[in-house]
Amino acid sequence: MFSHIKDLQFEAKPDGPDAAFARRLQEVLGGKWGEMTVANQYLFQGWSCRLPGKYKDLLLDVGTEEMGHVEMICAMIARLLDSAPLSVQEAAADDNPMLTAIYSGSNPAHFIHSGGGPLPVDSNGVPWNGAFITASGNLLADFQLNVTAEAQGRLQVARLFNMTDDPGVKQLLRFLLARDTMHQNMWLAAIEQLKEDGLEEMPVPEAFPDAEQENEFAYQFINFSAGEESAKGRWASGPSPDGKGEFSYQATATAYAGEPMLPPGDPRLHGTPP
Amino acid sequence: MFSHIKDLQFEAKPDGPDAAFARRLQEVLGGKWGEMTVANQYLFQGWSCRLPGKYKDLLLDVGTEEMGHVEMICAMIARLLDSAPLSVQEAAADDNPMLTAIYSGSNPAHFIHSGGGPLPVDSNGVPWNGAFITASGNLLADFQLNVTAEAQGRLQVARLFNMTDDPGVKQLLRFLLARDTMHQNMWLAAIEQLKEDGLEEMPVPEAFPDAEQENEFAYQFINFSAGEESAKGRWASGPSPDGKGEFSYQATATAYAGEPMLPPGDPRLHGTPP
Amino acid sequence: MFSHIKDLQFEAKPDGPDAAFARRLQEVLGGKWGEMTVANQYLFQGWSCRLPGKYKDLLLDVGTEEMGHVEMICAMIARLLDSAPLSVQEAAADDNPMLTAIYSGSNPAHFIHSGGGPLPVDSNGVPWNGAFITASGNLLADFQLNVTAEAQGRLQVARLFNMTDDPGVKQLLRFLLARDTMHQNMWLAAIEQLKEDGLEEMPVPEAFPDAEQENEFAYQFINFSAGEESAKGRWASGPSPDGKGEFSYQATATAYAGEPMLPPGDPRLHGTPP
Amino acid sequence: MFSHIKDLQFEAKPDGPDAAFARRLQEVLGGKWGEMTVANQYLFQGWSCRLPGKYKDLLLDVGTEEMGHVEMICAMIARLLDSAPLSVQEAAADDNPMLTAIYSGSNPAHFIHSGGGPLPVDSNGVPWNGAFITASGNLLADFQLNVTAEAQGRLQVARLFNMTDDPGVKQLLRFLLARDTMHQNMWLAAIEQLKEDGLEEMPVPEAFPDAEQENEFAYQFINFSAGEESAKGRWASGPSPDGKGEFSYQATATAYAGEPMLPPGDPRLHGTPP
Amino acid sequence: MFSHIKDLQFEAKPDGPDAAFARRLQEVLGGKWGEMTVANQYLFQGWSCRLPGKYKDLLLDVGTEEMGHVEMICAMIARLLDSAPLSVQEAAADDNPMLTAIYSGSNPAHFIHSGGGPLPVDSNGVPWNGAFITASGNLLADFQLNVTAEAQGRLQVARLFNMTDDPGVKQLLRFLLARDTMHQNMWLAAIEQLKEDGLEEMPVPEAFPDAEQENEFAYQFINFSAGEESAKGRWASGPSPDGKGEFSYQATATAYAGEPMLPPGDPRLHGTPP
Amino acid sequence: MFSHIKDLQFEAKPDGPDAAFARRLQEVLGGKWGEMTVANQYLFQGWSCRLPGKYKDLLLDVGTEEMGHVEMICAMIARLLDSAPLSVQEAAADDNPMLTAIYSGSNPAHFIHSGGGPLPVDSNGVPWNGAFITASGNLLADFQLNVTAEAQGRLQVARLFNMTDDPGVKQLLRFLLARDTMHQNMWLAAIEQLKEDGLEEMPVPEAFPDAEQENEFAYQFINFSAGEESAKGRWASGPSPDGKGEFSYQATATAYAGEPMLPPGDPRLHGTPP
Ligand SMILES: [Ca+2]
Ligand SMILES: [Ca+2]
Ligand SMILES: [Ca+2]
Ligand SMILES: [Ca+2]
Ligand SMILES: [Ca+2]
Ligand SMILES: [Ca+2]
Repeated sequence: MFSHIKDLQFEAKPDGPDAAFARRLQEVLGGKWGEMTVANQYLFQGWSCRLPGKYKDLLLDVGTEEMGHVEMICAMIARLLDSAPLSVQEAAADDNPMLTAIYSGSNPAHFIHSGGGPLPVDSNGVPWNGAFITASGNLLADFQLNVTAEAQGRLQVARLFNMTDDPGVKQLLRFLLARDTMHQNMWLAAIEQLKEDGLEEMPVPEAFPDAEQENEFAYQFINFSAGEESAKGRWASGPSPDGKGEFSYQATATAYAGEPMLPPGDPRLHGTPP
Repeated sequence: MFSHIKDLQFEAKPDGPDAAFARRLQEVLGGKWGEMTVANQYLFQGWSCRLPGKYKDLLLDVGTEEMGHVEMICAMIARLLDSAPLSVQEAAADDNPMLTAIYSGSNPAHFIHSGGGPLPVDSNGVPWNGAFITASGNLLADFQLNVTAEAQGRLQVARLFNMTDDPGVKQLLRFLLARDTMHQNMWLAAIEQLKEDGLEEMPVPEAFPDAEQENEFAYQFINFSAGEESAKGRWASGPSPDGKGEFSYQATATAYAGEPMLPPGDPRLHGTPP
Repeated sequence: MFSHIKDLQFEAKPDGPDAAFARRLQEVLGGKWGEMTVANQYLFQGWSCRLPGKYKDLLLDVGTEEMGHVEMICAMIARLLDSAPLSVQEAAADDNPMLTAIYSGSNPAHFIHSGGGPLPVDSNGVPWNGAFITASGNLLADFQLNVTAEAQGRLQVARLFNMTDDPGVKQLLRFLLARDTMHQNMWLAAIEQLKEDGLEEMPVPEAFPDAEQENEFAYQFINFSAGEESAKGRWASGPSPDGKGEFSYQATATAYAGEPMLPPGDPRLHGTPP
Repeated sequence: MFSHIKDLQFEAKPDGPDAAFARRLQEVLGGKWGEMTVANQYLFQGWSCRLPGKYKDLLLDVGTEEMGHVEMICAMIARLLDSAPLSVQEAAADDNPMLTAIYSGSNPAHFIHSGGGPLPVDSNGVPWNGAFITASGNLLADFQLNVTAEAQGRLQVARLFNMTDDPGVKQLLRFLLARDTMHQNMWLAAIEQLKEDGLEEMPVPEAFPDAEQENEFAYQFINFSAGEESAKGRWASGPSPDGKGEFSYQATATAYAGEPMLPPGDPRLHGTPP
Repeated sequence: MFSHIKDLQFEAKPDGPDAAFARRLQEVLGGKWGEMTVANQYLFQGWSCRLPGKYKDLLLDVGTEEMGHVEMICAMIARLLDSAPLSVQEAAADDNPMLTAIYSGSNPAHFIHSGGGPLPVDSNGVPWNGAFITASGNLLADFQLNVTAEAQGRLQVARLFNMTDDPGVKQLLRFLLARDTMHQNMWLAAIEQLKEDGLEEMPVPEAFPDAEQENEFAYQFINFSAGEESAKGRWASGPSPDGKGEFSYQATATAYAGEPMLPPGDPRLHGTPP
Repeated sequence: MFSHIKDLQFEAKPDGPDAAFARRLQEVLGGKWGEMTVANQYLFQGWSCRLPGKYKDLLLDVGTEEMGHVEMICAMIARLLDSAPLSVQEAAADDNPMLTAIYSGSNPAHFIHSGGGPLPVDSNGVPWNGAFITASGNLLADFQLNVTAEAQGRLQVARLFNMTDDPGVKQLLRFLLARDTMHQNMWLAAIEQLKEDGLEEMPVPEAFPDAEQENEFAYQFINFSAGEESAKGRWASGPSPDGKGEFSYQATATAYAGEPMLPPGDPRLHGTPP
């Protein structure tokens, strides 16, 4: 169960409007790696967590914080949309190329659909969707995903930071960058904790019996493209990070099975028969 | 540029048909974490890689291998779809509950749309889409994603392994499990290599200047849900994995800004005014 | 069964081309609340209507009219797309900021994909989809949806009216505004009629037995966010609109169940166990 | 900003597992009219609300409550997924048709993707998406949508209530039915309040000047399908609900414009020329 | 502008209910090659047609007929959904495996969302979307698409014909098969007519000047996979169907450009630099 | 199984950057008729082909070539994205309308999401999806689709050719135009070959018994829209292209069945009853 306070976690007020930047900021609201993704991902992971205690609490804490990040970006976008020109004519009226760029680079749905408010979409107006999140039930697989979610998210915020001069916008992004620093570290620490607690190891899922996989192929790098520059990396020789194998390098890919010959299909399906 | 040989990397032949399992196997073909995802993700990462040499070669090698995995699963699905009952009546004809389960648990589009062949969709028939992949241009952010892609993928293959008794199917899954073991190790090794080569560090992007983020919030865990069990993990105290900070635990979340009051909108947008 | 006449219900001819406005006008063609939505929604509701007579006829009448609205907007968009600059160079040639705004604010698919014609997409180029419509089989639930469809639609048309100076465009929008006025009134009248005919009442579905719901919670407003300003509305005290209850205000949300503790999952699914 | 308590608003515990029902229950979690929709819709409406005070508070209160409904249904689904057969063979083992129906009627991704947990998808496994919600900035248009969201939602819950005998499931549904009763009443009361406060009237948007629409068509029912049964409803004669007009009935649709003749397109687009 | 008569073009009444077949029949209603696709595709092609006369009339005639096909399939699906078991328990009650197959093989949204009516979705419940249709403005490109739309559609109807024994269902399918025969022939005839009228030729677009393409590659088959069986077809030697060239066979693919070396990116985007 | 060489099939290097054109070029990479579509379509058709020999080899050859086209366009887009202005301010700095048009006409995700690289999306940023491809198992139905895929694709490339002056871009497009010429001819030749080999004929599927369709309607053009201009085409009289019938023209559409009257639904679904 949730409760809401109306104050924001951090200030979200631009110094001036900029509808084109509002469109861009949507990427970290409703894009694949935006705040809606991390909020929902951590909450679903928490709700699916079959382990009571610190991990479940961690997931629900951070998921709940991210809901507040969704909220801050919504407030920022609503404010950035103020005072926008509504037509080409209006944008072009005083021969100011910045106004025409703002008009043309904005998201028309910000005005026609939401009347000057945020939308649950990315920077191209494509709706957020549930396939953006994963809660697999395996905490190590999911914490690895959470690391990258925060890395991709911080990368996008850093790029957005370089796309604006507005001090108020930059101030909010500074806060989000710091939280993403924390969250990258946090998920890395959580991975260490999982291993320390003996709950999971690489490769995921650790509990799957080694004897059941084709071990001959489990530590072998196979070269499928011209040139052997890929032989020069740590992935091609030496001990594997899971501590269980030794990398080898197969310079030429081998096919272990012949061409698959399919039998004729059911004639009632009217495929072209052999 | 690619070339194709018709032999398969590994055998993909079930001992018998099973259309319901064919539907399930689609998850690792056209689902979010399936072979189409890793193939396209690694190739796009390779094509976008602005660093010539071992990393680019690595990405193109593995992406090309994954195209061959797409192919093997396609062959397996085509064969699993043979001899399926086409109607309730046919399935129920000899009072064999397995046949009705196979009929009802199968994907109707496997027969109506593709005439007994694989589809670029997941286990519910939802099409694969481009938003499943990311090639951000930042190799560390992307290698972290690749680790989880292989972890989620291996987890799904392990689950599928437990959903069938067919020796031929299990044999292909054993091979895929081994390759996913390799690929998890490989991306972890690639992350180490990136750090050794001095190209990137956590938190991503490392090059973003520390002074530009709100450092006060960069190593602070904030408790947003009832209970303080989250204080018990490594993420709440001690040195942070990036080696640059010390975790702290804020037991009660603080709001640093007041309630956002939005100005009236443009009356031409006909929103309800304050 | 349908028949078509080539004349339009109303004139759809702009005084001049404007490809950027054409992109915006797509919102009321292929957007969530556009003409494709209402046309298909009313037709599916009519085809699913199990009640012969005036309601079914109403739905099919209006759905058929809306098909003609789709047609008019298609004609308008095709004409607005004429004479557009095809490249940055062309747009910038005579240093006219309006031309660059039109170029940049237009939908590239209008030229590359449809060669200067309308598309079944919204103002960002996202395709219309079947999930935009609902035909639930319950006429009151659906008429309520139809009221809002016409209200959202008229709101969008009114906003578009304020985004252009073209007399021909404005003339078509004037007609659509009038029809949306009619259709809002019509669905409200249809709701009254349904109630008069004794077919359905609020809350939907009326036939679900009151005794089967937890009546203690059926007229209670619960305060989940800081502040009690929500206590000041008609929803917090006094008789409920359905005439069956009295609103109450619960100032503090109560949890009626403890924390959900999930049992361990099936080990064959390799989730992290408790 | 949000905070979370781990207790549930209401109990969400089935008496026994039922993976096929779990799939069905997804409709009111991640379907178009499910809890994710109302939670996000009310929150976005609240965050976009430019009117401080009771309306904004109302939206944030109810949106926050709905987040707790998402959570309860997630808990219920996780529990319903326990003990499911993982394969046709297992389902068919003891010749119990209920087990095969549960196997075949379940969502395979519940096991392969989420390992026995809820997913942000509908009853067919199609992901929730942002286009399901609207926050238009016009409170009357949106409150009308909210009425139907609660009506469609309650209708679906009532149907689900008739699809199970499990006492624990039914108990949660009884609670949700009651809240949907409250919420239908609440949005209807909010509509009355908006009108009393003089903020908006039908037709939406009221502020759009009547003189700007083609008033001749604003209260006219037009018959577009064979038969005149639609003349028998309140929408065809008598005063209109907005109090501003008198309905009329046009028995034969008129075309007010000729066939649209399109000019040749730009030859560089290679369309077929006239 | 359209008008509607309530009679159906052909009878659409099953001899008995079959909810599992109703789900399957959705493929030709709301699937990629279903009636919604052809109806919308031909209408959009007609509305975009810049050529007055027989082609435009042809497109609007057939598009309008297809709207009536949508309607017939909707009626059929509504009737097939009658009398369905609503739960596993009900389906399994009398130990009839056909009932459990019908329960499990049905689309749950047919009951929960539409209350026993058709949906604008495919056989897996994935919504129809606007990207299914193309109206390119080039009639030859589009008529080629229309040929395949009718071929794919007839193929699916033929498969469905083999999936049911219901005489009423089969009767409707017999009609649809005949219309698809007509429509395949019709679009082939329309292609001939276009050529006779001198409006377009292969390759599309004919008006693009031959001198502007790299003619060296315009009639050359290139072998990209092992084996030279592809040399045995008419596409590898002899005159080309457009009458302008002679096919040749290149047994080994050649790369005409070196490895693409990308320059470093903008450092403000924080990609990994070369 | 595939292998990759790093050289490109043809040069893909623009003379200068142009981010707005990069967005447009995405249409033929990740749009409905782009290279991802043809590559995946031909490969899936090849993998599903139950006929060993020249047809299967043809499909795999061309599908593999198209993977190399995906790669070339990716290289071109990455290069076109260089040196782009990252903000309105930067674009407007030197009062150059071309720079503002490039800024506003570009895809923001090219910078925020992919850091200056290609994306698997169309020219509006909508992701490529699996529903764009079809592999039906019937070679004639699919070859017809392949003809139009190459025709639509070449049409789009020809339009793009007219949207740029960059010699390097034009050079790549010249190559793609030539390959599309070849591929249109090739699929037409493959259709002839299929017929010569006696494998399939029009109408598809030929093997469906003529006696099972309602032959009365199999060669009849029905006029559903006002005017009889459609009577003037070859589709309205004379022999049909399949050589089996004679076209006739029905000037007035006939309804062969009465209005469909639906029975009351299951009361447990709470639809409005008749
Ligand atoms: Ca965040
Ligand atoms: Ca793989
Ligand atoms: Ca309308
Ligand atoms: Ca609720
Ligand atoms: Ca048809
Ligand atoms: Ca190509």
